[in-house]
Amino acid sequence: MADPYPSRCGREAAVLPRVDPVVHGTWHEGAPLTQEQLTQFERDGYLVLGDLFTTGEVAALCQASTALLADPKALDPDTVIAEPGSREVRSIFMVHRQDRAMARLAADRRLADIARLVLGDEIYVHQSRLNYKPGFAGREFYWHSDFETWHVEDGMPRMRALSMSILLSPNDATNGPLMIIPGSHLAFHACAGETPQDNYRASLRKQDLGVPDRATLTDLAAENGIRTAMGDPGTVILFDCNAMHGSNGNITPFPRSNAFIVYNAVSNWLGPPSGDLEPRPEFIAARKAAPIISGRPSLPLEIATIC
Amino acid sequence: MADPYPSRCGREAAVLPRVDPVVHGTWHEGAPLTQEQLTQFERDGYLVLGDLFTTGEVAALCQASTALLADPKALDPDTVIAEPGSREVRSIFMVHRQDRAMARLAADRRLADIARLVLGDEIYVHQSRLNYKPGFAGREFYWHSDFETWHVEDGMPRMRALSMSILLSPNDATNGPLMIIPGSHLAFHACAGETPQDNYRASLRKQDLGVPDRATLTDLAAENGIRTAMGDPGTVILFDCNAMHGSNGNITPFPRSNAFIVYNAVSNWLGPPSGDLEPRPEFIAARKAAPIISGRPSLPLEIATIC
Repeated sequence: MADPYPSRCGREAAVLPRVDPVVHGTWHEGAPLTQEQLTQFERDGYLVLGDLFTTGEVAALCQASTALLADPKALDPDTVIAEPGSREVRSIFMVHRQDRAMARLAADRRLADIARLVLGDEIYVHQSRLNYKPGFAGREFYWHSDFETWHVEDGMPRMRALSMSILLSPNDATNGPLMIIPGSHLAFHACAGETPQDNYRASLRKQDLGVPDRATLTDLAAENGIRTAMGDPGTVILFDCNAMHGSNGNITPFPRSNAFIVYNAVSNWLGPPSGDLEPRPEFIAARKAAPIISGRPSLPLEIATIC
Repeated sequence: MADPYPSRCGREAAVLPRVDPVVHGTWHEGAPLTQEQLTQFERDGYLVLGDLFTTGEVAALCQASTALLADPKALDPDTVIAEPGSREVRSIFMVHRQDRAMARLAADRRLADIARLVLGDEIYVHQSRLNYKPGFAGREFYWHSDFETWHVEDGMPRMRALSMSILLSPNDATNGPLMIIPGSHLAFHACAGETPQDNYRASLRKQDLGVPDRATLTDLAAENGIRTAMGDPGTVILFDCNAMHGSNGNITPFPRSNAFIVYNAVSNWLGPPSGDLEPRPEFIAARKAAPIISGRPSLPLEIATIC
């Protein structure tokens, strides 16, 4: 079957139809989202949820994040990514396999059940990370659709993955909050260019490939507007894998940090990357992950950091 | 008399008391600000005013700004400043002497009477510019007090100047709005380092000198918080010459633009710069300006662009 989402194959940029649903599951009584929330997610491509976690759980997650950032030498060095032009940590990948609290978070039923509903399938963690936009000199994340990269560089076949950003510091107008173009997830923005081997080594610091051209972005934003997704620690932002998003820099003294977990449907398992690209490493794109066991009740997250 | 505000004289950074009032005039019936507004300005160091201008006037100002940006070659080339690492226009200085609408804006009684009230004196325009944070790649303005630079590099004796930012595009959470630390204007943050000759050639693009150290900023922001000053076109943001402010970058497709006018009290006329520095050019720091004539009624600003 022809690839419905060709990108970076030497052709010009193009806007292609999305052939996959946004919501793959079916709403039912007792579902972890209301019908209105699910409809809103389908239309906008994102949804902001407060109050999923207790104050104690949020404190435990923040503590775990601080501990990880304070001692990056204790981690797999490949998974620690610095800011462009700096040695400050920008992201730590695969946190759910390096830290117990993050493992518990990724498997937490409150998140996983939402992912199962949206994706209509059993799920596994495709990628996890701590994003950390340092104070004073935190750089922007330029506009991109995650799916474009995951499709081209990781061989993710279809749009059936869901990202969750769990805020671990206040995200507000001062420190470069997530910006999203509502409705942008409803088309595939194929990018120009071709991808060199090992592109990820540069792109995790600063993305230059797989970003839409300025005319496309201008049209998209003029038509749909740009929204900010902000909140206090513990807020969870869900966004579709194909939503066009980015964030500005951060000159405030206060870092902006969040945990980022990507759930993929087990039926959407990674295949070979585009062209002759080598698969990216496991810490960016899991190929050896086990599905998250469903039905298991969630323990309070602060317990995970103790036992 | 010893300089109450020594900075960049080879000593370490220091926090010195402000020896000047914030509000130099006295509130009276019929004043252009309410007593509450004046008190708020005195306490916070800034004030946001909507509805000073009519829709037609705002449109005329935006049109004038667009025309200036569209044809920078028609302007004094020294007054056109590019973004760091780019040729995109970041600021156009001395716009009130290069454009009729901007001249009318700077002399407009609605602004000038506020400046006279706050500064308690007759006034002149110390500096004017269009600030233009381009879309996609607009860079941040790092934290600074304008007065620190004006004092060191321009010989402005005391804190008796008032800045006004007149928004010419929506300034919101997405495009790097003005951020200000309320109360920061109540102390003088003397900076470390010394100033090379012609520092302005670099500093107008990216300021590296005359910025407070990170520990000072962290303390200031932790104690007072950080506020954003946002609004629709036509909104006027007043801020004290010594308020600590800055703004993040702008990756949205939409530029963030505003007109910026600095009023200085005639009794606060510029003297010699610090040390052996040469005075900066007239377009950055006026030494030949005439006071704004008071008492003259304001004509609607859109008329200025026609006649």
